[in-house]
Amino acid sequence: MRYTKVVTLEEAIRKSGLRDGMTVSFHHHFRGGDKVVNLVVAKLAEMGFKDLHLAASSLSDVHAPLIEHIRNGVITKISTSGLRGELANEISHGLLKEPVVFRSHGGRGSAIASGELHIDVAFLGASSCDELGNASGCPRSENAKSICGSLGYALPDARYADHVVILTDDLVPYPNVPKSISACDVESVVVVDSVGDSSKISSGAIRDSKNPRDILLAKQAAKVIINSGYFKDGFSIQTGTGGASLAAVKYIRESMLEQGIKASFALGGITAHMVKLHQEGLIGRLVDVQSFDKVAAESIATDQMHQEVSAVEYASADHVGSAVHALDIVILSALEVDVNFNVNVLVGSDGIIRGAIGGHPDTAEDSALSIIVCPLLRGRIPCVVPKVTTLITPGKGVDVVVTEYGIAVNPTRPEIAARLEAAGLKVVDIHDLAAKARSIIGEPDELPFGDRVVGIVMDRHGKVLDEIHNIVD
Amino acid sequence: MRYTKVVTLEEAIRKSGLRDGMTVSFHHHFRGGDKVVNLVVAKLAEMGFKDLHLAASSLSDVHAPLIEHIRNGVITKISTSGLRGELANEISHGLLKEPVVFRSHGGRGSAIASGELHIDVAFLGASSCDELGNASGCPRSENAKSICGSLGYALPDARYADHVVILTDDLVPYPNVPKSISACDVESVVVVDSVGDSSKISSGAIRDSKNPRDILLAKQAAKVIINSGYFKDGFSIQTGTGGASLAAVKYIRESMLEQGIKASFALGGITAHMVKLHQEGLIGRLVDVQSFDKVAAESIATDQMHQEVSAVEYASADHVGSAVHALDIVILSALEVDVNFNVNVLVGSDGIIRGAIGGHPDTAEDSALSIIVCPLLRGRIPCVVPKVTTLITPGKGVDVVVTEYGIAVNPTRPEIAARLEAAGLKVVDIHDLAAKARSIIGEPDELPFGDRVVGIVMDRHGKVLDEIHNIVD
Repeated sequence: MRYTKVVTLEEAIRKSGLRDGMTVSFHHHFRGGDKVVNLVVAKLAEMGFKDLHLAASSLSDVHAPLIEHIRNGVITKISTSGLRGELANEISHGLLKEPVVFRSHGGRGSAIASGELHIDVAFLGASSCDELGNASGCPRSENAKSICGSLGYALPDARYADHVVILTDDLVPYPNVPKSISACDVESVVVVDSVGDSSKISSGAIRDSKNPRDILLAKQAAKVIINSGYFKDGFSIQTGTGGASLAAVKYIRESMLEQGIKASFALGGITAHMVKLHQEGLIGRLVDVQSFDKVAAESIATDQMHQEVSAVEYASADHVGSAVHALDIVILSALEVDVNFNVNVLVGSDGIIRGAIGGHPDTAEDSALSIIVCPLLRGRIPCVVPKVTTLITPGKGVDVVVTEYGIAVNPTRPEIAARLEAAGLKVVDIHDLAAKARSIIGEPDELPFGDRVVGIVMDRHGKVLDEIHNIVD
Repeated sequence: MRYTKVVTLEEAIRKSGLRDGMTVSFHHHFRGGDKVVNLVVAKLAEMGFKDLHLAASSLSDVHAPLIEHIRNGVITKISTSGLRGELANEISHGLLKEPVVFRSHGGRGSAIASGELHIDVAFLGASSCDELGNASGCPRSENAKSICGSLGYALPDARYADHVVILTDDLVPYPNVPKSISACDVESVVVVDSVGDSSKISSGAIRDSKNPRDILLAKQAAKVIINSGYFKDGFSIQTGTGGASLAAVKYIRESMLEQGIKASFALGGITAHMVKLHQEGLIGRLVDVQSFDKVAAESIATDQMHQEVSAVEYASADHVGSAVHALDIVILSALEVDVNFNVNVLVGSDGIIRGAIGGHPDTAEDSALSIIVCPLLRGRIPCVVPKVTTLITPGKGVDVVVTEYGIAVNPTRPEIAARLEAAGLKVVDIHDLAAKARSIIGEPDELPFGDRVVGIVMDRHGKVLDEIHNIVD
């Protein structure tokens, strides 16, 4: 090659023109296995940068080392979809002076596309990349060390950031085909030992449940779908990452086979479950913003009908072309849902941040039918409550709540309630569910919130939706 | 679908906010079979628009109806890579008041990306599109009426235009996967009877030659490549659309088989010849900005290793990630080449515009080895001349000129001349070729150029390279 963009990480950072106070961005396609954020921020710290804004598509347990970089003033602002583990705990207790800005995946995409979230330098991990910067989340050589599949959350960064650095653990011969990120959007390529541990991309929120309650909830959710009026040939579906919503796919599949119904596409975080249905011919297309496990990542690497989409193409409210506008049914989970159908997926009932907004409000609002699957109680914690601790998904976008004590339907959707009742499902008033939870658990103590705002929740249209206060122990 | 962007052409135009004086754009992937330009401009005329700037990736014989729209003041400015036929003839005679701005494919991509060429409304033909605007040049249903393969020249328009209208002759169910143009970049979708006659995509400059002189030139070009020092495992190649350069592929293939050499990729306008070598395993990847025939279009529809690239990704001088930066060898044709190795592919020796810049200067400049294949004479017209009628590709980017009277090597590349001579090839001084042509034909008459500038040739870096004057009969 007569041209190369391959440089060391330090050279890439110097070349980028990064200065104190600027915004650096990252994707979270390796989820709990991500190695890029910690590596790059450690280098930024070593190089003496201060006061940086870290704009990640999401952060998780593995990013606890950021705590030190926040204490040392390297990172003074964070934008993300979620926070988990010790970093989340510390931030909930007031670690960061500026509030963390939480956005949905679609909201982040829109904010980047509109310029509201301006990225100075994006540091994007890729499982393969050539010397000019054509990058992919798919392995392309025998030396491949990682796989994450779709790079959907990284694509807005690649397109709109002023400067893009690809980090890869497999530099492959030019041209890396097919590419996810175009060399024309890339300034530097950095070869590293590892961009992520692929075995952990299905960690975090995703788990296959054998919990009998999850299975009960999954069966109920499947019945809701099948009787909702939206279960017909050509329907489209997205499932969240909760055990029950994943298990629901199994029961929907049985009805699809029985009734001879096929889905046009499955959207969102794509799982092995969806790949299986696609390969069986039950789902025509997979529209994948994030490959949720290795099977999905391997499928997107080889199957042309398994399409990678950017976060903008997935769920932007500003773009009528985004896929959520064509989505019929979404199954979602919740930490809390309240009597106005508002949902919280970010802050625990102890007031501590422990989740991620993800595509929850995006899909809930734009889908034709959104179904929240959650137990009435998790241990001693009520999940149906008078008022959510933090508002993430406004109730106007939430149609049905499935619990083990009955199914609540948003009063704005009486036709759905009628269909479910006609099918013999137990439709209850959501106030009764909240009362039931309260009757079992009793009145919870007031949460020990302090006066400081540690998080701001943006809605997907770019407006402030709620604030998260610090917790005082 | 709860959302649709499907409207009539007139509605799409009204919705676009188009006003007199604005810039409308088109791609030329259907080449001589294009039906979009004439259809849209007729509608714009009917709706009373005036003073529009038509920015096409190229124009050809089929666009003769534009003459009337220019006379009527609907179109008052044109930007394009080329002009042919009656439209070209009229423009050469002074039809348009403003000079036509000619850019290479890479130059157009760069100009659009940088904002120098700002497109208000792009009208882009697609062989398949869904209701939200995911568009492709590949057929996706049994009702498909057309195929053009890569939409590479349309991709900068789709990304950077203020408003994008897709015209399609096959509206397919959502989601149209895989897409070339994203629904998120599209405002309207218009269903038309036909976007183009696919049988004509290999018309125009492309032809398979049985001409003995072409075959001789092809054999010589192949020998140049094989002995150039660049013919080694992993090399990359682009061939132009001339008969000789296409035929050269055949002879190169034989040497690849004999010597066990494989190419990493073929670039540019992809032809059936290249698809064959790819399918035989002789070329690893096809990097396709324009599918030059139906075989290439069908290949890109199904083969993941046949990658669509935008004009920016193909040949932008502003982007080191563009593929020409990785290109080893290019075979190109010429209308004229002069003693300074300057090439003209746009204006005939009669002074009349009759060609297209295409990717000629882009690939010549950035490739490691550029070979011009052209006969010394075409009938009574000399092709090696003291000075090109119009400068399109500056000689500094041109390494070798192959004629039936010998091979001229640019003095800046003595190492190549030495290698060719060592291989027993007849290396001659380009001045001798020009003198030979002159001795056969005699001194040509001065061309009857007038005082008006009818065309401006931009180089690929955005600077004015040459002017084309009107012809006075």
